[in-house]
Amino acid sequence: MLSFESDYIEGAHPLILDALVKSNMEALSGYGADRFTKSAKTKIAEACSCPDAQIAFITGGTQTNQIVIDTMLRQFEGVAAASTGHVSVHEAGAIEYTGRKVLTLPSHNGKMDAAELDKYISDFYSDGNCEHMVFPGMAYISYPTEYGTLYSKKELTALSEVCRKYKIPLYMDGARLGYGLMSRECDLTLSDIARLCDVFYIGGTKVGALCGEAVVFTKNNMPAHFEHLIKKHGALLAKGRLNAIQFDTLFTDNLYFTLGKNAIDRAEELKSVFIQKGYKFFIDSPTNQQFVILENKKLKQLAENVKFSFWEKYDDSHTVVRFATSWATTSEKISELEKLL
Amino acid sequence: MLSFESDYIEGAHPLILDALVKSNMEALSGYGADRFTKSAKTKIAEACSCPDAQIAFITGGTQTNQIVIDTMLRQFEGVAAASTGHVSVHEAGAIEYTGRKVLTLPSHNGKMDAAELDKYISDFYSDGNCEHMVFPGMAYISYPTEYGTLYSKKELTALSEVCRKYKIPLYMDGARLGYGLMSRECDLTLSDIARLCDVFYIGGTKVGALCGEAVVFTKNNMPAHFEHLIKKHGALLAKGRLNAIQFDTLFTDNLYFTLGKNAIDRAEELKSVFIQKGYKFFIDSPTNQQFVILENKKLKQLAENVKFSFWEKYDDSHTVVRFATSWATTSEKISELEKLL
Amino acid sequence: MLSFESDYIEGAHPLILDALVKSNMEALSGYGADRFTKSAKTKIAEACSCPDAQIAFITGGTQTNQIVIDTMLRQFEGVAAASTGHVSVHEAGAIEYTGRKVLTLPSHNGKMDAAELDKYISDFYSDGNCEHMVFPGMAYISYPTEYGTLYSKKELTALSEVCRKYKIPLYMDGARLGYGLMSRECDLTLSDIARLCDVFYIGGTKVGALCGEAVVFTKNNMPAHFEHLIKKHGALLAKGRLNAIQFDTLFTDNLYFTLGKNAIDRAEELKSVFIQKGYKFFIDSPTNQQFVILENKKLKQLAENVKFSFWEKYDDSHTVVRFATSWATTSEKISELEKLL
Amino acid sequence: MLSFESDYIEGAHPLILDALVKSNMEALSGYGADRFTKSAKTKIAEACSCPDAQIAFITGGTQTNQIVIDTMLRQFEGVAAASTGHVSVHEAGAIEYTGRKVLTLPSHNGKMDAAELDKYISDFYSDGNCEHMVFPGMAYISYPTEYGTLYSKKELTALSEVCRKYKIPLYMDGARLGYGLMSRECDLTLSDIARLCDVFYIGGTKVGALCGEAVVFTKNNMPAHFEHLIKKHGALLAKGRLNAIQFDTLFTDNLYFTLGKNAIDRAEELKSVFIQKGYKFFIDSPTNQQFVILENKKLKQLAENVKFSFWEKYDDSHTVVRFATSWATTSEKISELEKLL
Repeated sequence: MLSFESDYIEGAHPLILDALVKSNMEALSGYGADRFTKSAKTKIAEACSCPDAQIAFITGGTQTNQIVIDTMLRQFEGVAAASTGHVSVHEAGAIEYTGRKVLTLPSHNGKMDAAELDKYISDFYSDGNCEHMVFPGMAYISYPTEYGTLYSKKELTALSEVCRKYKIPLYMDGARLGYGLMSRECDLTLSDIARLCDVFYIGGTKVGALCGEAVVFTKNNMPAHFEHLIKKHGALLAKGRLNAIQFDTLFTDNLYFTLGKNAIDRAEELKSVFIQKGYKFFIDSPTNQQFVILENKKLKQLAENVKFSFWEKYDDSHTVVRFATSWATTSEKISELEKLL
Repeated sequence: MLSFESDYIEGAHPLILDALVKSNMEALSGYGADRFTKSAKTKIAEACSCPDAQIAFITGGTQTNQIVIDTMLRQFEGVAAASTGHVSVHEAGAIEYTGRKVLTLPSHNGKMDAAELDKYISDFYSDGNCEHMVFPGMAYISYPTEYGTLYSKKELTALSEVCRKYKIPLYMDGARLGYGLMSRECDLTLSDIARLCDVFYIGGTKVGALCGEAVVFTKNNMPAHFEHLIKKHGALLAKGRLNAIQFDTLFTDNLYFTLGKNAIDRAEELKSVFIQKGYKFFIDSPTNQQFVILENKKLKQLAENVKFSFWEKYDDSHTVVRFATSWATTSEKISELEKLL
Repeated sequence: MLSFESDYIEGAHPLILDALVKSNMEALSGYGADRFTKSAKTKIAEACSCPDAQIAFITGGTQTNQIVIDTMLRQFEGVAAASTGHVSVHEAGAIEYTGRKVLTLPSHNGKMDAAELDKYISDFYSDGNCEHMVFPGMAYISYPTEYGTLYSKKELTALSEVCRKYKIPLYMDGARLGYGLMSRECDLTLSDIARLCDVFYIGGTKVGALCGEAVVFTKNNMPAHFEHLIKKHGALLAKGRLNAIQFDTLFTDNLYFTLGKNAIDRAEELKSVFIQKGYKFFIDSPTNQQFVILENKKLKQLAENVKFSFWEKYDDSHTVVRFATSWATTSEKISELEKLL
Repeated sequence: MLSFESDYIEGAHPLILDALVKSNMEALSGYGADRFTKSAKTKIAEACSCPDAQIAFITGGTQTNQIVIDTMLRQFEGVAAASTGHVSVHEAGAIEYTGRKVLTLPSHNGKMDAAELDKYISDFYSDGNCEHMVFPGMAYISYPTEYGTLYSKKELTALSEVCRKYKIPLYMDGARLGYGLMSRECDLTLSDIARLCDVFYIGGTKVGALCGEAVVFTKNNMPAHFEHLIKKHGALLAKGRLNAIQFDTLFTDNLYFTLGKNAIDRAEELKSVFIQKGYKFFIDSPTNQQFVILENKKLKQLAENVKFSFWEKYDDSHTVVRFATSWATTSEKISELEKLL
């Protein structure tokens, strides 16, 4: 069955599997004390133009968000996020489970507004009662957002300035970072992100790896004994090679960006197909997630041959659904879809 | 360099890599809603002679211990474990991090004694002050233990009876279960374990997989919304296929047991070599971890060519070190070691 | 200086101090095993027309909310509350600190709407993604609300019905319960509340006691080993007599209600004074908290002689402030205030 | 009935009740912003010869231990305590509930040995595996201990030096501090304690107050936003006056020490009575808790007229019981007891 259900429906890019196979019988120490971990970190730091970047590999996205937020906040702080942010809604309370409050700000097509963040923090400190409230101690953004949208360099710079003004870290969830960076609307480089954010993660799971996210601390600000803290959160892999080899491959010969570009190119094709067929979009997304408004009968009929994700009810007779492309999507699949529309 | 550093120094058994490669481009839903997850669960339930077993895949061992203990205990309970148990000492406080106290009992070569557990719980309830203490709400054992030792069927039955007497679950950490089951001293089957324990996990990471542990609830006692709880702990993989395909392979054609047997056979060879050369053992281990007492000069010399693990100081001139065999250890490696002794 | 800063600016009602003095040298067992604890519980159960009520005394309000919410929720659940609820905003993250998410619903003058709660829960279970979200496991309301407003019997009944429909407890924060029950607009009795809510607390701290809140479980639903759980949260008093003697006094000869009535009568006087002087109210509050809109110059001038609380900015030249009456407020103080307006 | 059940069976010293009554109708701001809080802090700082001491009042002992330990430890640290320490055994898991592991060291009549602590920490850092274990981040001692014993100045100095060597705070639980300081064996002053410890608390609940403990940070090391953190733990009293007035009274005219002396004088009388009657002690306690070995028949007979605490079984025919004197114990009570022996 044709599937655009998500960007994690296939396994890993073949070069990653090759690297796993090739290195398989090499004896390596556990817990990250292996040569691939070292090599992958060096390559990522270079790609970020941030030679002093401190990098750690964690297996999944929710886990990464949980660990970064929990270990960077001070005890009286919570994390500010757009109300639609992944940490606000879709992580099964993993952030609160570690004792941290998510402070929600308005979402503008998935994005947080720098001026609103500034006002939120400024108002917080003006409130005589602020000692009884959770201090805003970090700003969390996702790039691309949960709605596929992107911050412009100007917007990200503004957020970065607000965070520096209040001396709190700006954290970017880059679960789909590759798809953001290769978007035709993107005016940011990985180096810009490393410069403007205090910590971010480069998503592997959704961009061609079997699993794995690379957390990058850009300001010599990795929490002390971070490996211990990863283990305390239950997340330290014995075979650190698994994540390391994957990222080592992704950051060899620009594979990460090549994979990102494929998803974007296919998304543009998919968009054209829907437009030509007269469909409307719920939101104008420049990345690999496309949100289409389907008439309910059409939805039912289409669902017999194609997998996609339910997003939300639009009105009584229409529904918003998501079609996702990925590193693995082919033009042939887009053509197959076209025939079904 | 020759390495007996641990049982997780290589990647995965080639059949596992083959299965990952073969299934790679098949589109599968995420979070465990894929055919391999279903298939792997069925095969494991069969291998356990426990058709109603409820099974979940989690990526690592500390994570599995954290999640099982945290989700099965009631709010007033802690987990009883031998003082040398992995959860007591070597998990970076991951159990306490979730708010749970580890109640330590004496360790007998790594094992908990059933009569001592019985007395501990009985004394607890006799103490007029028990409402101010943490209730023993689960017994945790590892099999093989951290010292490579095994519970006999009689010992495990006794522990199971104590747990049933007090209506608390018996939980077995089977990080190296395959190496225990194939030990020449083992008088237990996987079915015995499923019958006697309320929950246990079958270790993949140390027995031939890249990662992954299979938690088996044997008494229709999986906590409600367990998938949600895994995610809340940060541990739910988007690509559930990764763990599933590995376990599906491990439980096809008895691969898991074949891998276990290899490690045991090599451990017996290694033991013979050390004995012939006149070395003494710290403990009599019937499994894949062998604890040898080395004279410090010899240790230094040997370390130039072989990797092994420091275990503990024995006396001023001797040290206990661990040599581990695994599914991947070959007889050739044992011969190479022999030459160096 | 004249003060309407809050309803906890004075010590305790003299009858409470008398009772503490009178019982002072009587030797009593600790941790609630004393005759006053027993007597106070009996009196409260009677006042609630709920003979089987299970009651516990806890020292403060945030603590009570933290303990009740944390111990009643299941591991996959959070608590639904109005966005202005005390637990949503002003408890320093005490709820999240215990790992629990506060799920916010719209606030209507401080109140949660039953139909909106119904829709929220219904939508939650309709969402295919709900396993990745926090389950609504309790409804939290405050009575009176943080804005001094009250639920009518009809509104409380509707909320109770929604909670029963979804089998989740309805929890009422009664920090100022006495002031709600004696409001001239109140059409609920303590017995109605005991019947409609699954758990609630009767506030002592703000209604005449030095400290102390009485939690009432009305449906035989007190969590197992609740005393242990209170201690685990750090909140069990060695001298259980302190809270018990106070509540025993408050529920002797209807003192609790007498105290409530005084605050309401004085609030009505205060309201009249402001109205006569032409002031406007921010909200129409029928209880002891009155929210007045002050011109900023007037505010500054008044603040020289009277204490009150800043609430929020109204516009560039006006501010909302709160005047609170209490069990201890006298008509003389209202007259003094009148002269200053 | 005659009672030596504990040192918290009576209410409060009459001077404390007087102070509460006298200040009762004075309008005071909440949450510690009152003149008594200021005054009590000044008096305590003076009594400690530590003018820069940072002081906070918390309602109970378990709560104080929980908050101090949780807020002073870094995320990778746990607290070292004697295996018999209150935090190790009798706090319902309140320390672990906040995610902190208690690292237990041997108990020597309730005391931790400085050399053993030194070795424990030194061994910890020598262990190649230490990143997978909880770092010792604080030493917790109780003074007097749970067995009524005292650290000498030499012993406390040695512990202090070990803590400084490893740069971790030394924390003293002074639930019964007044009874320790007035012991005839005590060679420490409150100033010595303030100098040698990094943080300690002066127990009120067991030394004449209705409730309340005063935490003293002696090295300008109070955690940032400590009031917020107290509230986050659920422990901030709205009527901060309650604890403050009590401590203001206890530290006026040396009342705290006078109360301590009474308990010690009565304990010495009680000891003499038991010795004269030929009873044996389980431990030689120089403070207000006396541990007597009773023949079981005698125990039963005595229990008809006197209350005391069961401590532990001694042998098949004898039991260890505890008799506690306090600030409120009179010589008459000791005489009454004498008649019953």
